[in-house]
Amino acid sequence: MHIWVINPVITTSWAENTQRTYADAARAGTQVTVVSLDWGTASIESHRDEALVAPDILTKAVQAEQAGADAVVIDCMGDPGLYAARELTQIPVVGPAQASMHLAATLGHRFSILTIFDHDVPLMEDLATRYGLQTKLASVRAINIPVLELREDAESTVKALINAAEQAVRDDSAHVVVPGCTGMAGMAAQVQEALGELGYPVPVLDPPSVAIKLAESLVDLGQSHSKRTFPYPPVKDIRWPSEGAFAPQSRGGGE
Amino acid sequence: MHIWVINPVITTSWAENTQRTYADAARAGTQVTVVSLDWGTASIESHRDEALVAPDILTKAVQAEQAGADAVVIDCMGDPGLYAARELTQIPVVGPAQASMHLAATLGHRFSILTIFDHDVPLMEDLATRYGLQTKLASVRAINIPVLELREDAESTVKALINAAEQAVRDDSAHVVVPGCTGMAGMAAQVQEALGELGYPVPVLDPPSVAIKLAESLVDLGQSHSKRTFPYPPVKDIRWPSEGAFAPQSRGGGE
Amino acid sequence: MHIWVINPVITTSWAENTQRTYADAARAGTQVTVVSLDWGTASIESHRDEALVAPDILTKAVQAEQAGADAVVIDCMGDPGLYAARELTQIPVVGPAQASMHLAATLGHRFSILTIFDHDVPLMEDLATRYGLQTKLASVRAINIPVLELREDAESTVKALINAAEQAVRDDSAHVVVPGCTGMAGMAAQVQEALGELGYPVPVLDPPSVAIKLAESLVDLGQSHSKRTFPYPPVKDIRWPSEGAFAPQSRGGGE
Amino acid sequence: MHIWVINPVITTSWAENTQRTYADAARAGTQVTVVSLDWGTASIESHRDEALVAPDILTKAVQAEQAGADAVVIDCMGDPGLYAARELTQIPVVGPAQASMHLAATLGHRFSILTIFDHDVPLMEDLATRYGLQTKLASVRAINIPVLELREDAESTVKALINAAEQAVRDDSAHVVVPGCTGMAGMAAQVQEALGELGYPVPVLDPPSVAIKLAESLVDLGQSHSKRTFPYPPVKDIRWPSEGAFAPQSRGGGE
Amino acid sequence: MHIWVINPVITTSWAENTQRTYADAARAGTQVTVVSLDWGTASIESHRDEALVAPDILTKAVQAEQAGADAVVIDCMGDPGLYAARELTQIPVVGPAQASMHLAATLGHRFSILTIFDHDVPLMEDLATRYGLQTKLASVRAINIPVLELREDAESTVKALINAAEQAVRDDSAHVVVPGCTGMAGMAAQVQEALGELGYPVPVLDPPSVAIKLAESLVDLGQSHSKRTFPYPPVKDIRWPSEGAFAPQSRGGGE
Amino acid sequence: MHIWVINPVITTSWAENTQRTYADAARAGTQVTVVSLDWGTASIESHRDEALVAPDILTKAVQAEQAGADAVVIDCMGDPGLYAARELTQIPVVGPAQASMHLAATLGHRFSILTIFDHDVPLMEDLATRYGLQTKLASVRAINIPVLELREDAESTVKALINAAEQAVRDDSAHVVVPGCTGMAGMAAQVQEALGELGYPVPVLDPPSVAIKLAESLVDLGQSHSKRTFPYPPVKDIRWPSEGAFAPQSRGGGE
Repeated sequence: MHIWVINPVITTSWAENTQRTYADAARAGTQVTVVSLDWGTASIESHRDEALVAPDILTKAVQAEQAGADAVVIDCMGDPGLYAARELTQIPVVGPAQASMHLAATLGHRFSILTIFDHDVPLMEDLATRYGLQTKLASVRAINIPVLELREDAESTVKALINAAEQAVRDDSAHVVVPGCTGMAGMAAQVQEALGELGYPVPVLDPPSVAIKLAESLVDLGQSHSKRTFPYPPVKDIRWPSEGAFAPQSRGGGE
Repeated sequence: MHIWVINPVITTSWAENTQRTYADAARAGTQVTVVSLDWGTASIESHRDEALVAPDILTKAVQAEQAGADAVVIDCMGDPGLYAARELTQIPVVGPAQASMHLAATLGHRFSILTIFDHDVPLMEDLATRYGLQTKLASVRAINIPVLELREDAESTVKALINAAEQAVRDDSAHVVVPGCTGMAGMAAQVQEALGELGYPVPVLDPPSVAIKLAESLVDLGQSHSKRTFPYPPVKDIRWPSEGAFAPQSRGGGE
Repeated sequence: MHIWVINPVITTSWAENTQRTYADAARAGTQVTVVSLDWGTASIESHRDEALVAPDILTKAVQAEQAGADAVVIDCMGDPGLYAARELTQIPVVGPAQASMHLAATLGHRFSILTIFDHDVPLMEDLATRYGLQTKLASVRAINIPVLELREDAESTVKALINAAEQAVRDDSAHVVVPGCTGMAGMAAQVQEALGELGYPVPVLDPPSVAIKLAESLVDLGQSHSKRTFPYPPVKDIRWPSEGAFAPQSRGGGE
Repeated sequence: MHIWVINPVITTSWAENTQRTYADAARAGTQVTVVSLDWGTASIESHRDEALVAPDILTKAVQAEQAGADAVVIDCMGDPGLYAARELTQIPVVGPAQASMHLAATLGHRFSILTIFDHDVPLMEDLATRYGLQTKLASVRAINIPVLELREDAESTVKALINAAEQAVRDDSAHVVVPGCTGMAGMAAQVQEALGELGYPVPVLDPPSVAIKLAESLVDLGQSHSKRTFPYPPVKDIRWPSEGAFAPQSRGGGE
Repeated sequence: MHIWVINPVITTSWAENTQRTYADAARAGTQVTVVSLDWGTASIESHRDEALVAPDILTKAVQAEQAGADAVVIDCMGDPGLYAARELTQIPVVGPAQASMHLAATLGHRFSILTIFDHDVPLMEDLATRYGLQTKLASVRAINIPVLELREDAESTVKALINAAEQAVRDDSAHVVVPGCTGMAGMAAQVQEALGELGYPVPVLDPPSVAIKLAESLVDLGQSHSKRTFPYPPVKDIRWPSEGAFAPQSRGGGE
Repeated sequence: MHIWVINPVITTSWAENTQRTYADAARAGTQVTVVSLDWGTASIESHRDEALVAPDILTKAVQAEQAGADAVVIDCMGDPGLYAARELTQIPVVGPAQASMHLAATLGHRFSILTIFDHDVPLMEDLATRYGLQTKLASVRAINIPVLELREDAESTVKALINAAEQAVRDDSAHVVVPGCTGMAGMAAQVQEALGELGYPVPVLDPPSVAIKLAESLVDLGQSHSKRTFPYPPVKDIRWPSEGAFAPQSRGGGE
């Protein structure tokens, strides 16, 4: 099985780490290819960023399918471009936020999300509502460390995550915790362990791992997103500053 | 008062008509400038289209503010780029869908939206949910005429709208009707009249007119969107195929 | 354009101030007539008060339409008599609560209302639910100053509002604030400024101003409430202690 | 035990029948006093009607408590004046709609209400929402016979009720049915029997009977409505065309 | 009237007290029979416990109907076996949780439940949601005293209840309080009195009393649960370790 | 990896088929053990049945963990005993309904469930609500073939499923379909193919396959249900007609 992971930003310094994270979580036979964007923003922390990374995510998703990938994961907890990418593909396109929120809802009474900035709280709340999970969301709490600094001082980040997670469990009645940025990849285990020591036996999910498990499961099942919800869009005129590399026209499409 | 209307597609054939529609609905002293996109799609009928038009909408919204506009309207019922554009501006940015749905909820028990394709129904339902109006939405019904053909045979379009509106009122208990594409601009009055003749005294809103009224009202009130919800995004590296014209970096921003 | 503002109580001491507030918010060409009740209560702070002011509000609304008014505003944040008055009229009847809550929902992620007494909290929550906005309501907070004392020591009132608004923003995640009594008219700007100085850039709406903007917009649009939701009630026997002045029989009515 | 039933209209022709209905449903030791309004409308079929009957309902509720009644029932499925009357009293004030909807929700998966006119549907839906039962409401269906004609041709009314009830069960998945006008008192048994013969074993509640059972139960329990939700309103100036008989000032009140 | 109360555990030490509680709350002519389980758990504080007591509750409910009982009450605030018992009977089967939550919703704006352990909070929240009352639930608060110790030191239990009730009213805006374990039977009055002295005039319901009132009311009305929601289950093979005493096969059943 | 599948009934005739279904869906290295109940009902089609199968499901789940299983699947779309079994175990316990509903919500706008009898509709609706997915549920439709006859004439069953699925897609706007009985295992592919031929490209999930994928994923992730939601229940007296084989006491438990 071959899964493409789209690193949906122009920053490539963490791509190797991303590759390792996903490969470690994948099954033995699963090959992981990480591809970064040619255009977009350095990180994703706002509606503006989500808008600017979406077009090239579409190009990469289409390329993945053309290259024979079995599934695609978009490595960001805002799930940018997820629905649009599904319109252009038949293979499963998985968003870590959607995958993790649904798994969290499966494992406990309510879940909390730990996000980057206070102003990301509405984005995550709107996302949970879009996925139909507003009644399962206990809270969204921010750690207020920018994405690009998350790994500069990983220890501080983990401490901030533990602190926010503890508040979520104690004050917001969270029974499952979801670190809400894929830049926090690999830190979930430490947070879960620390919560356990505080007397809170709650799962802390690692969204990239959850996403690749969902991708593998869908490939195993021979299933994908509903083309009734995400049909190929009509072919139409598209003007773009860089025609050559640009592919978000429907290929196998149905009009 | 000066209001910029962003025609959020590369199609310019209807720009003059758009200008007239908004200018007619505006007050005497309101100047309307319509600007079309340099890049994007010919029309907006899918998530893909919404993703591809968003970046240049941001550029145009920033330009509007820099040019001294008092408010911006994004002329599409998917409200593409609305939240991202608000992050980058202090002047009001108005989406016809949000404006019309809230006004419809104000005028009657429940409202229905008449949209383009069946596959747009989930988009409009998700939008109503995002705006917090899911309990006021009676239904979304499609007329299945592509955007680019809406005005080719305007009479047929109006007939299809009347037919769908009648079903919405009779079968879905709609008490207000909202034509769900700005390409249907100016047709609302005919639909309302036809419904009245059928014994259904329900308002049929014209979203562009509603949008410009909201824009004017906000300017009158000296109010705009909450910068707590839509703060200036952090300045960060952005790589884009056409640097020169591209402006979605926060200018007055607060990082 | 001529708009009648119903001061829905028997207290007339603030009528002049009300007139000025609305006239200041109105456009140049808009004429504002304020009319107070002949019967009812001195202020509105309970279900009892809302019940006792409603009948004469209907009389005044009908008189407004008969006198050629283009729209009516009921100057109270409980929107007393709003739906009944709409049944008896074709011209728009606007409630400041409905108008402000929907505008607040348009401008930010969630809004809070600042009301008079703790026991008014359920009334405002029920009102938000009735308008379909329960998911957009962050909280209702009381300042516990009676309506009739709001303007006795306006400085204290403003201070109490700022204090409650700050709590709403900080503790309840309000992104927009709505002073929940029209007796607080004109104080919104000071509250907004104070919040800004505290680092909270959130809109604080002035409901009377918002209401007159909505009234003007509806007149501009040639729209009104849906007569499908608010049909003329059947003509029937009504017995009332003061027949002469009483008009809540449907005039233009439908049977 | 002594229960006052307020016939909340000026029509007295059915008062005797009302008295019998309630007395029949009451326990052996329960005395039922029916009192009609001095002012108000002949029947209740609109927001206008609800507004006009509320003030005198308050007077009658206060009189009931002063006269030593143990509980009050307001005999109308719109529950007019219910919340305001509770503010002015300590004894239980029961609304047949609230009582019946909660009992219906207790007995089956979802319930439907059979109401008078199509334009009463939003009123009943809003009422169910106010009572927190929107997710238990299957539908509201109208029989389109005016209140004042319900008993003129009782057989036709029962037929219309059976027909509407059958549609509610078959098409709307109602598992319990509530006739939504107290003018339909006593007809529930026939409708339930007819549904049973059609193979639908669903309870059809008689709201007046349900209301008096709730009143008796509350008196037995020594409980009443929460004065935290319905506190005595502040004493204040009230001007009314008929001072003598008018009593909606708080008596035992708490300011 | 004869009402069976199922004490749905194997502990019989409190059966006499249970009998007295229900008999005291019942009307003069109502006979109360308390029956305990032959198999099951000593108390009910988890999903495990609810699963283990359900089968014998069914046996007892069927025996009650066969013995000529007019109604059944299952004396536990988890309402274990309620829906299954209704399938097997035609006489009303009442759960104190369902009865009390609906009555609480009738009496005030929102209610809180005082439960045993923190880990019972999700159970009670899920139950409120199942009954359609999630929007009326202010909070669930635990007193963390095991069921079997509730009456060992009744004074401490009452103190813990008062403390939790005060927090519910003050911090969670509860307007009605429901002690969430029938082991707290008879303590409600003391809690209500204490709250009153603290300035909180809120009803504190006694669920067993509420349940028997509902049972009596249903018998008076000649009503029961909907057999459309709770039809007799198909007759089928059942294997059980104790065939003799086991009766959860439908008797009067419908296939 | 070793997964126990509990066939939660006393019928063993389909156990071999169940084994094959799960083994086929499992990965190469996953061993599947199917275990049937010693006591319980022949099939599960009512609340009664769910109550009677739950106790022995607990025994089997505990045995699975003691025998070294890595995860447990309860092979029934009512997810009977799911929450109770999770209390008694640390290894993941998966319910096909919960797993399938969440996956369905991930793949499309709304999903429909195809169930056995009309009277199972409320059970499935309540289950979707319990899992927080009420807004993603399009409908529940019954095929009205008893569980024990589903495989007698498999062709008829598939036809009935296709017919119900078509109605769900066409009339209820389902975008994903979930056969709502594990007795329909293996039929999903045919239904999906038939829908595709009708022009409806919607995923039709096979719940047993989905459940084992979720179980495998959880084992891969080293995750399980939250012990904050599902803590070990207190050790207490349990009386049961068959002590020897009975194990639903917490073993590794936390008191």
